[in-house]
Amino acid sequence: MNLPVVFWLIPLASVCALMMAWLFFQNMMKEDEGSPRMKEIALYIRRGAMAYLRQQYRVVLIVFVVLAIIFAIMAYGFNAQNPWVPFAFLTGGFFSGLAGFFGMKTATYASGRTANAAREGLHKGLKIAFRSGAVMGLVVVGLGLLDIAVWFLILNSFYSDMDPHTALITITTTMLTFGMGASTQALFARVGGGIYTKAADVGADLVGKVEADIPEDDPRNPATIADNVGDNVGDVAGMGADLYESYCGSILSTAALGATAFAMSADDMQLRAVIAPMLIAAVGVFLSLLGIFLVRTKDGATMKDLLHALGVGTNTSAILIAVATFGILYWLQIDNWMGIGCSVLSGLAAGVIIGQATEYYTSQSYKPTQRIAEASQTGAATVIIKGIGTGMISTCVPVLTISVAIMLSYLCANGFDLSMSATSISRGLYGIGIAAVGMLSTLGITLATDAYGPIADNAGGNAEMSGLGEEIRHRTDALDALGNTTAATGKGFAIGSAALTALALLASYVEEIKLAMSRAVTHGQQFIDAAGQVFDPAKATMPDFMNFFQVNLMNPRVLVGAFLGAMAAFLFCGLTMGAVGRAAGKMVSEVRRQFHEIKGILEGKATPDYGRCVEISTKSAQHEMILPSLLAIIIPIVVGMILGVAGVLGLLVGGLAAGFTLAVFMANAGGAWDNAKKSVEEGRFGGKGSPCHKATIVGDTVGDPFKDTSGPSLNILIKLMSMVSIVMAGLTVACM
Amino acid sequence: MNLPVVFWLIPLASVCALMMAWLFFQNMMKEDEGSPRMKEIALYIRRGAMAYLRQQYRVVLIVFVVLAIIFAIMAYGFNAQNPWVPFAFLTGGFFSGLAGFFGMKTATYASGRTANAAREGLHKGLKIAFRSGAVMGLVVVGLGLLDIAVWFLILNSFYSDMDPHTALITITTTMLTFGMGASTQALFARVGGGIYTKAADVGADLVGKVEADIPEDDPRNPATIADNVGDNVGDVAGMGADLYESYCGSILSTAALGATAFAMSADDMQLRAVIAPMLIAAVGVFLSLLGIFLVRTKDGATMKDLLHALGVGTNTSAILIAVATFGILYWLQIDNWMGIGCSVLSGLAAGVIIGQATEYYTSQSYKPTQRIAEASQTGAATVIIKGIGTGMISTCVPVLTISVAIMLSYLCANGFDLSMSATSISRGLYGIGIAAVGMLSTLGITLATDAYGPIADNAGGNAEMSGLGEEIRHRTDALDALGNTTAATGKGFAIGSAALTALALLASYVEEIKLAMSRAVTHGQQFIDAAGQVFDPAKATMPDFMNFFQVNLMNPRVLVGAFLGAMAAFLFCGLTMGAVGRAAGKMVSEVRRQFHEIKGILEGKATPDYGRCVEISTKSAQHEMILPSLLAIIIPIVVGMILGVAGVLGLLVGGLAAGFTLAVFMANAGGAWDNAKKSVEEGRFGGKGSPCHKATIVGDTVGDPFKDTSGPSLNILIKLMSMVSIVMAGLTVACM
Repeated sequence: MNLPVVFWLIPLASVCALMMAWLFFQNMMKEDEGSPRMKEIALYIRRGAMAYLRQQYRVVLIVFVVLAIIFAIMAYGFNAQNPWVPFAFLTGGFFSGLAGFFGMKTATYASGRTANAAREGLHKGLKIAFRSGAVMGLVVVGLGLLDIAVWFLILNSFYSDMDPHTALITITTTMLTFGMGASTQALFARVGGGIYTKAADVGADLVGKVEADIPEDDPRNPATIADNVGDNVGDVAGMGADLYESYCGSILSTAALGATAFAMSADDMQLRAVIAPMLIAAVGVFLSLLGIFLVRTKDGATMKDLLHALGVGTNTSAILIAVATFGILYWLQIDNWMGIGCSVLSGLAAGVIIGQATEYYTSQSYKPTQRIAEASQTGAATVIIKGIGTGMISTCVPVLTISVAIMLSYLCANGFDLSMSATSISRGLYGIGIAAVGMLSTLGITLATDAYGPIADNAGGNAEMSGLGEEIRHRTDALDALGNTTAATGKGFAIGSAALTALALLASYVEEIKLAMSRAVTHGQQFIDAAGQVFDPAKATMPDFMNFFQVNLMNPRVLVGAFLGAMAAFLFCGLTMGAVGRAAGKMVSEVRRQFHEIKGILEGKATPDYGRCVEISTKSAQHEMILPSLLAIIIPIVVGMILGVAGVLGLLVGGLAAGFTLAVFMANAGGAWDNAKKSVEEGRFGGKGSPCHKATIVGDTVGDPFKDTSGPSLNILIKLMSMVSIVMAGLTVACM
Repeated sequence: MNLPVVFWLIPLASVCALMMAWLFFQNMMKEDEGSPRMKEIALYIRRGAMAYLRQQYRVVLIVFVVLAIIFAIMAYGFNAQNPWVPFAFLTGGFFSGLAGFFGMKTATYASGRTANAAREGLHKGLKIAFRSGAVMGLVVVGLGLLDIAVWFLILNSFYSDMDPHTALITITTTMLTFGMGASTQALFARVGGGIYTKAADVGADLVGKVEADIPEDDPRNPATIADNVGDNVGDVAGMGADLYESYCGSILSTAALGATAFAMSADDMQLRAVIAPMLIAAVGVFLSLLGIFLVRTKDGATMKDLLHALGVGTNTSAILIAVATFGILYWLQIDNWMGIGCSVLSGLAAGVIIGQATEYYTSQSYKPTQRIAEASQTGAATVIIKGIGTGMISTCVPVLTISVAIMLSYLCANGFDLSMSATSISRGLYGIGIAAVGMLSTLGITLATDAYGPIADNAGGNAEMSGLGEEIRHRTDALDALGNTTAATGKGFAIGSAALTALALLASYVEEIKLAMSRAVTHGQQFIDAAGQVFDPAKATMPDFMNFFQVNLMNPRVLVGAFLGAMAAFLFCGLTMGAVGRAAGKMVSEVRRQFHEIKGILEGKATPDYGRCVEISTKSAQHEMILPSLLAIIIPIVVGMILGVAGVLGLLVGGLAAGFTLAVFMANAGGAWDNAKKSVEEGRFGGKGSPCHKATIVGDTVGDPFKDTSGPSLNILIKLMSMVSIVMAGLTVACM
């Protein structure tokens, strides 16, 4: 079909984002990396990080090749799969990996330069770190939109002689499957990176801080380079792949829902509904760029000025995107554009509220974290009990918020219609999807504020190891702390959008089943409903499918599915926690061995063997990431084969509800422990080295895998399970 | 209607159980309580326990009176409630409290006597402790069946001129509401008792064991009496109320499902289906008694002999009940008796498997717990990480088992029919309910093996405090360890039956909504379905209701409900964890104060002020139990009012799936930490007093509220939320 001119805004935004990323990267590279010692340390970290990423991509490549072959066999051998899937799957994975790679490369070049710039002042440090973080943000959105635009153009020209209404449904559901590539890549990146970074972090802290009483990032600690490498592979590359996946997933699932919701509309309304989420994202790119340029401070700026500067950038982008969304929807003349715009607003508001709640429960400025610090007076056990209790209670606000956002975005988009007719459901679900798109549309800048945290963190490491002195370290710590505040909001958007996207994917799953059944019918399979009538999937609506598959809460398959979904979330977390525990154990033994065997190491007279620790983290991550990641792929396939569509939907809903809550619990408990420790380190309850400090270090160490391995991986798990179900819909239908 | 003669077996079993309980109690009382010191200690504990229970009942009484008044207003003022509910509710609560009271009274008299008997040998100690535990088991089943039989007789005579088919549905759904009384009582008992016992335990351990380096139960520790009182109020009274609730809940919900499933059957099949679960329970009482008498050993018996003796008792009862069930169902000539019998078998098998899995994940004889002990070499943090990881992974087998049990018991009972017709659903759900009844039918003996654990534990405390010497202490420890092994199976049955009962209650909820709607129709309310037709609740089947309320997984109300259900489970746990943390903090401060202010206390020259510690636990428990318990009652009511039936069903399913998994995680992590510590205490990794020991004590302390407060309370939460929804169905309908 003919695309409106405005469509070209999407590739244009993509190219702009990538060009600006390139420019920021070049400018950053021109900065001085500091003394030879600083350069040496940065080189160590860069090499370690790249070496790990190569290993990770090797494992992931094998998984991708195997899966692509399976998809190809399903598609070409058994007609149980859309023929484009193997290719779409591969590009999704490739671009997701690329986004992580570029982000990490930038971060490893930037941290030394940030440390060096911090010698001149906070202001200079912020600029380099933030602009380098922006490289990642822009690469993610740029590559995401590129992948979307190119695939849309290819498929559109391929299906050009098909009836436009059918073509759009086919195109959007096909494109959805490249989300599975991105999800798979993201899961490996998050899990592998998360295990790597936390094995190193926990190992370095337990022996260095607790046993040998040396400060964080001290060059005498053999695990310190591995720890800094970990920040890059986990917090930068992992996060990049993760958010690439959320970004594309939300746009693609909303586009697919738009194709269904407006399938019966006159003229090209359907096409406009499909490209609406892409356009919102494209405009978001430009507004993000604007926001990035607004983040500027003068020489001699204070912390407060910096926080204000970041706030101006992100808030301006967010407010403008809200306004622009209404403009885009109005301009596209989409039915009920006002209502759909309100859906986006409710999504944005939910993101902000969840972010605020995260901030409240994890910042040392508020009671919950202060109480955890207080509990250190009665020892490590009460710190843990209090932290777990706080984390669990902290699930309340985010769940209530997301619940309200779901209801509002659904109802606004379908004109407050709870009748559950086919149209009301599909329009409502479109609203849920577009709320997620709205949340993520300013990812270019929000990810910049997220990614600059680990850069500042690494800059601190570099400053410490190259002996730049207290003041510089204080400045990098200040930059890091600043990042934590803005990152809280970022986290709110990440988890909120994950939940909304997962819901949109749930609906897309039913669409995909419909297509798979239609394909099966053309190949001679017949479906009989409960009343003994022949069921025609091509003509059936969403409610018809619900009835045909008996997807109600008295169906034991749905109930069993829900149990299995909740279990999948816990099992996955348990496996990743266990992996970190094992890997950290190995790291502790190695660090202890080096302290014991290498004479003069603690006096700073001998150099520790950093390489061995890097190797331990790399190997552990590489081995340990396989089982949990494969489980996430296998569980929905097996459930689909045994319990059918009803079981899969139960699984996805159970997994989503339990997984979301568990993810919030783990992230917040971890964040609160971290800051409770910082609060003691700042002098409360005896300060550094006191028994209270030791107790809070236990809390922080437990929190490490909570907040940086298991918690964030859950975000991906809940979406990946939906993605796998979508891609494997053909198999589920074949087993019926 | 005329009841068959066999019905009288139910009150007969009840009377037999209560008489035997009385006999065992009398025999136990005849035993010598030992030296004056032993008597004194037992008296302290008895007084503390009774004082606490009085306080708890006072709070609970207020809640009960308020709720009963609300129910009465709803029933008599607005016709939105069955008129029997206020009374049924009160008796359920009363009997549940009574069961806890009698069990605890017996336990507090028995522990001193067990300690004294252990001076003569293991054999004698086992007999007293076990028979005293049996008092609790028999009181629970006796009072449960009494309540059921009496209410059935009353309601049957009241509705004698109603058409028998309708009468049975009315009677069984009315009786179901006395389950809410039992649940409410159970929740307060579990939460209050759990907070009490763990505040004392954590406080005693943290200061006594860790800081002052004195052994457990040392009389120099001011919190030691409170700790022993706690075992009674939490592990005995709390567990009694809890299992009373499970026992009655499973029987009543199955009876209600039987009334619906066989409503269309010829002659009095329906009546037979209703009394089948009661009869299975009644026969279970006799078989439990048989099993209790089979538990006998000779003088000079070894540990292995004792374990064998307990095994003979419980296994014989379980095998005989399986056989007897087929006999009862055959004799009652119930349709598909063979299939329904198989449902019971699958429930029993699931209980055994979950028990075995619990044993595997928490016993020091197996790898998971050993690995947690190993992790102590790298400190407390890795112990916690490993324990949480293990606990989360341990959810896998129980969830898979319960999933298979759900499918099997459903399919066996309805002749492997997945068509989701009205009959196939109701027969299948009856199968799920009766599987739970089968699991709990031998509660008389399984509860005896559970309840004797805390008695042995307290006996150990008495032995330590009255200075009976190492050998006696070893014997009571052996008795305690023996209890842990059998208790694992007991836990499997408790949590498995909770899940199955909750599912049965889910179905009963829909029935209750049907009745409430029918009542509303007679008062002039009209219901219009999505197609604009008048909906007649009286004639509608289960699938009709699912359609009318759109209880499918694309309904945003269902999805939001599921989120809220998962959140409710986490929030509830968070609140109870927080409560234990706060209460334990107070206890720690008090014990430290006494150590500091009372001179000579650590040299054993001055007596600590035990009373203050008992008071702290009592007051904390009393205050802290209110908020979480009320939340459990309020959440389903509010969800019903705002999101309607679809939202409530989503809430219950989300809460059940997440709550069950969370409960298994918490119980197993707690159990594993406990035994990891024991394993170190037995000499591994440096033994008592080593850094590894300190690290495992942190784990054990964190595990205390996991396994004894939050975890077990979740069992009740998932059932109470269903019960509240059932009782409040009228309100939900009124808000439609």
